[in-house]
Amino acid sequence: MKRIGVMTSGGDAPGMNAALRAVVRTGISLDMEVYGIEHGFEGLLDGEIKELKWSSVGDILQRGGTILRTARSKRFLEDHCQDRAIKILRTFGIEGLVIIGGDGSFHGGLELSKRGIPVMGVPGTIDNDLGYTDYTIGFDTAVNTVLNLISNIRDTSTSHERATVIEVMGRHCGDIALHAGLTGGADYILIPEIPADIKDVCKEVLRGKQAGKGHSLIVKAEGVDFSTDKLVETLEEVTGMETRAVVLGYIQRGGSPTERDRMLASLTASKAVRMLYDDSDSRAIGISGSEIIAVDLEEALEMKRPFDRDMYDLAVMLS
Amino acid sequence: MKRIGVMTSGGDAPGMNAALRAVVRTGISLDMEVYGIEHGFEGLLDGEIKELKWSSVGDILQRGGTILRTARSKRFLEDHCQDRAIKILRTFGIEGLVIIGGDGSFHGGLELSKRGIPVMGVPGTIDNDLGYTDYTIGFDTAVNTVLNLISNIRDTSTSHERATVIEVMGRHCGDIALHAGLTGGADYILIPEIPADIKDVCKEVLRGKQAGKGHSLIVKAEGVDFSTDKLVETLEEVTGMETRAVVLGYIQRGGSPTERDRMLASLTASKAVRMLYDDSDSRAIGISGSEIIAVDLEEALEMKRPFDRDMYDLAVMLS
Amino acid sequence: MKRIGVMTSGGDAPGMNAALRAVVRTGISLDMEVYGIEHGFEGLLDGEIKELKWSSVGDILQRGGTILRTARSKRFLEDHCQDRAIKILRTFGIEGLVIIGGDGSFHGGLELSKRGIPVMGVPGTIDNDLGYTDYTIGFDTAVNTVLNLISNIRDTSTSHERATVIEVMGRHCGDIALHAGLTGGADYILIPEIPADIKDVCKEVLRGKQAGKGHSLIVKAEGVDFSTDKLVETLEEVTGMETRAVVLGYIQRGGSPTERDRMLASLTASKAVRMLYDDSDSRAIGISGSEIIAVDLEEALEMKRPFDRDMYDLAVMLS
Amino acid sequence: MKRIGVMTSGGDAPGMNAALRAVVRTGISLDMEVYGIEHGFEGLLDGEIKELKWSSVGDILQRGGTILRTARSKRFLEDHCQDRAIKILRTFGIEGLVIIGGDGSFHGGLELSKRGIPVMGVPGTIDNDLGYTDYTIGFDTAVNTVLNLISNIRDTSTSHERATVIEVMGRHCGDIALHAGLTGGADYILIPEIPADIKDVCKEVLRGKQAGKGHSLIVKAEGVDFSTDKLVETLEEVTGMETRAVVLGYIQRGGSPTERDRMLASLTASKAVRMLYDDSDSRAIGISGSEIIAVDLEEALEMKRPFDRDMYDLAVMLS
Repeated sequence: MKRIGVMTSGGDAPGMNAALRAVVRTGISLDMEVYGIEHGFEGLLDGEIKELKWSSVGDILQRGGTILRTARSKRFLEDHCQDRAIKILRTFGIEGLVIIGGDGSFHGGLELSKRGIPVMGVPGTIDNDLGYTDYTIGFDTAVNTVLNLISNIRDTSTSHERATVIEVMGRHCGDIALHAGLTGGADYILIPEIPADIKDVCKEVLRGKQAGKGHSLIVKAEGVDFSTDKLVETLEEVTGMETRAVVLGYIQRGGSPTERDRMLASLTASKAVRMLYDDSDSRAIGISGSEIIAVDLEEALEMKRPFDRDMYDLAVMLS
Repeated sequence: MKRIGVMTSGGDAPGMNAALRAVVRTGISLDMEVYGIEHGFEGLLDGEIKELKWSSVGDILQRGGTILRTARSKRFLEDHCQDRAIKILRTFGIEGLVIIGGDGSFHGGLELSKRGIPVMGVPGTIDNDLGYTDYTIGFDTAVNTVLNLISNIRDTSTSHERATVIEVMGRHCGDIALHAGLTGGADYILIPEIPADIKDVCKEVLRGKQAGKGHSLIVKAEGVDFSTDKLVETLEEVTGMETRAVVLGYIQRGGSPTERDRMLASLTASKAVRMLYDDSDSRAIGISGSEIIAVDLEEALEMKRPFDRDMYDLAVMLS
Repeated sequence: MKRIGVMTSGGDAPGMNAALRAVVRTGISLDMEVYGIEHGFEGLLDGEIKELKWSSVGDILQRGGTILRTARSKRFLEDHCQDRAIKILRTFGIEGLVIIGGDGSFHGGLELSKRGIPVMGVPGTIDNDLGYTDYTIGFDTAVNTVLNLISNIRDTSTSHERATVIEVMGRHCGDIALHAGLTGGADYILIPEIPADIKDVCKEVLRGKQAGKGHSLIVKAEGVDFSTDKLVETLEEVTGMETRAVVLGYIQRGGSPTERDRMLASLTASKAVRMLYDDSDSRAIGISGSEIIAVDLEEALEMKRPFDRDMYDLAVMLS
Repeated sequence: MKRIGVMTSGGDAPGMNAALRAVVRTGISLDMEVYGIEHGFEGLLDGEIKELKWSSVGDILQRGGTILRTARSKRFLEDHCQDRAIKILRTFGIEGLVIIGGDGSFHGGLELSKRGIPVMGVPGTIDNDLGYTDYTIGFDTAVNTVLNLISNIRDTSTSHERATVIEVMGRHCGDIALHAGLTGGADYILIPEIPADIKDVCKEVLRGKQAGKGHSLIVKAEGVDFSTDKLVETLEEVTGMETRAVVLGYIQRGGSPTERDRMLASLTASKAVRMLYDDSDSRAIGISGSEIIAVDLEEALEMKRPFDRDMYDLAVMLS
């Protein structure tokens, strides 16, 4: 393989730039040319493609976001657009593609793969919601960002002896809430994987109050099936405690990546390029334990993420 | 004066603990006893009062929040409660009082002052909304916190080429928005002091888009007279740009205080105690230029905060 | 088992407090009493032992250092002191011991184990130099601290177009240098595991200069067999570039632990207590891949740490 | 004035980029052209000069260091080089110059000023050692960086119950040590302005030890007339406490500037350009209280920095 393409797609994640750097420099080290596709699948369809040199990815390792920009593309879901994308790639002489993104981006990649371009998926998403890999690039940074924010919120929550509900990202996967809740010392963790009742939260807060706890922190994933507003209202009503909410939102997506995310990005992205160099079929690259793995792309997308019930129970026990 | 009291009151602010430390240690150095009153005026009415020793304020200089806790007190607004507060202070032998808080807390202090207990106000509030002092304790930390969060948001806003509205604290005083907006490179700053129309924001965002700006950051104080939701909706409609909002909320209240806030806290709190030691009448302590000042408490509360139009104009020019 | 002891020993590491919290709360949840031993083996010999309650470990999860203090003990190396330690533990009714520390502390624990007290080792050291576990508590925080400092140093190194040598901790194990070097974008990484010549560094810096690199960052573990001063001097002489050194030293030991370190601490410490509860023989607790493991204590101490040559080669390729 | 030049010179400081941005954008807003001179006076002599556009200074407000690079120039001290510099400036049509730097850079500017080019000095140095201005750009960031590092060092110093000497920058001016020492809770502050004896430090550490302090932090400016090594050695000998040193060095020069530094940079740099636009004589721009001031350049360089003895005494009292 002589020329490969790389794009970032879907929601951005800290570490995408580190992955991009590893793609470009590994590619050049293997005597390949690397072309950057801007704005994900949207940019691919618009031909926003240019060569990336060694120095194009200098001084980006530590930056959040993605210098290639990213986008979600509706039109790429259509058959004829996918066909056109293949033609565009061929026109540029791109023989293989590295896609840095999450579930939706990998599905897009699979369509290209079926049309004859080998695709390597590098898991770039803060949500940690991919079944085939233990961790995704951006998750560690996002959780540490949440921990720092919890630390700020704890100061004011303690001073006012309030209950505070902290809503974090996670529609289907509660990993950010679970990890940040356990290691941030939350009194209650609400995640999509464990159905809970608002009454349970109220009971726990009352129990803590009676045990002498001056304040209460509840970490809630956005995907939980009751709203944060409803929770706040009920908590005030039932416990009599002043209750506030903070929705962390897009703050969780940015920031300089942590060492783990930069490392995971470097290892998986470099592996992805080596797989293309070795003429491998399409794969999703990930980490299992301490091993970098390459799973058949289609199979990877079918794998369900196991939920770590022990971790949740530990969080409950230690809180 | 042999024995003084100290309380933190109203919304908490980073640096309150640094102020508390300076009150206690300055007091003891001047051979006075210092009594801490917990939960502000609420705790005063409940007699939550205990002596603070040198070591009681060890290792708190760098902590956000307040170890004395704080509260807002409705009942203290009533005459008979204010009378009772004086009796409680007399019962404990407290001859003077340092109140670390904002406007409302100083008004409460004024009532005590009128009933014969000299009160020194130390300006502890992130809002920077007191007329008699250039800066309040907690403002510098809050603005730097906002800057760090803007930095995170900028990463994702740039990557997705979005407009993002960042809502910061400030009901009547736009200083957090103005300072963070200017030094965070915001494209538009919305504050209560400068009436603005949503249309103006739309025009500016469109102008930026045409000038090639890939994204847009708008910093908006909460006190602006249209809602953040309305702004986001109109922006999407008019500019066609994907627009998101982040409400920073209580994150701005916590965190380890910056050097400036610790310094201002140490200087003003120490001054407050010296004034009590010198049998001064009630004063509001503050900073004017590089001078620590002590203004008659009642007059201080009547002073209006001048708005720095030049700073706003500079922000507009540099953005 | 009814009553267990816990100590922190050797060099402190961020996350030791998180481990301590998990020991105490897991123990109490299992209906055991937990006694804290201050100042490591020194304090054990002095009988500095007291019960820790649920609330004794409140609000410490996020703190660096160790509330039990730590120390290195020379006299504990002597046979009769080890015998006496056993008598003291028996006097306090302590039937099992959790030691949070590194290699030296585990050796001390082994002596107690041989004398009849089961000991669980929890790996608390920033050095990541234990053979039986992939990671130790504190390593992730230390590496991220180094990354943040590299970011500061890069600013000034770039502005002055200097070469800068950054000396990090690591006498026998170069993991801090290797991880921070790779993910901090160092131009050269010097570690004890890979013998290198100063001439090689000079050549690489010259090569970078000719390739247009404006500055150069060299990350060097303290255990490398030539001094940082010698390296700086030679670099200036040979390359003609202004060269500076920064020795990070004790800054690397402190700070609020990252999520990974708090999580590893919580998981391993909780496991250690459960093993004692289940009357297990002495074990070293660690992590292998994503599994928490418990290895025979004596065998664990004999295991050699494998060096990850691939990671080093990746760092060289990407720099 | 139609065309102005701008350079950064001497040691770099956080906020130099913010100043640069304000110079360029204020200049363009006033319909002037702005030329950037790279590498300070060295680059001026080499003709490293190019126009800076509005977008040339985009996304640099938050960055440490200086995108123009900086240097110290020996040859510029020579008369004939200064003459040549004027010819080069005239060749490029540059009619006025903004120099962002410290004392040495302003002296260089004065030479150009005497040869007919008006020069505006913007105070960019972390040392806060200029007599005519209360604060310099970079000082606030440097002090906050030191505070964060002290926080790390405190963790390990407390855990091991050590004395730790923290050496910070400051050859003639002890402001970094004084501010960071007071607000970092140092037990002793050593600065060039207050002669001290090692014996005094030993006495204070012993006094603290007897008062029950578990550890001791000494903040020492580099310009103090005994070495850090000597201090450590004597402390260990006299107090019997394990003592360690950390030399913060170049870490203090980098990092993203704080709000205060970005604001001071924006205000002074913008003022400098307006002064050139108004055909003012050479001036040093600074801040006095809350006023931006413009002092005759030659007079500014003769002003002595007053030492704030009260602040030092407050630090002693509160520690």
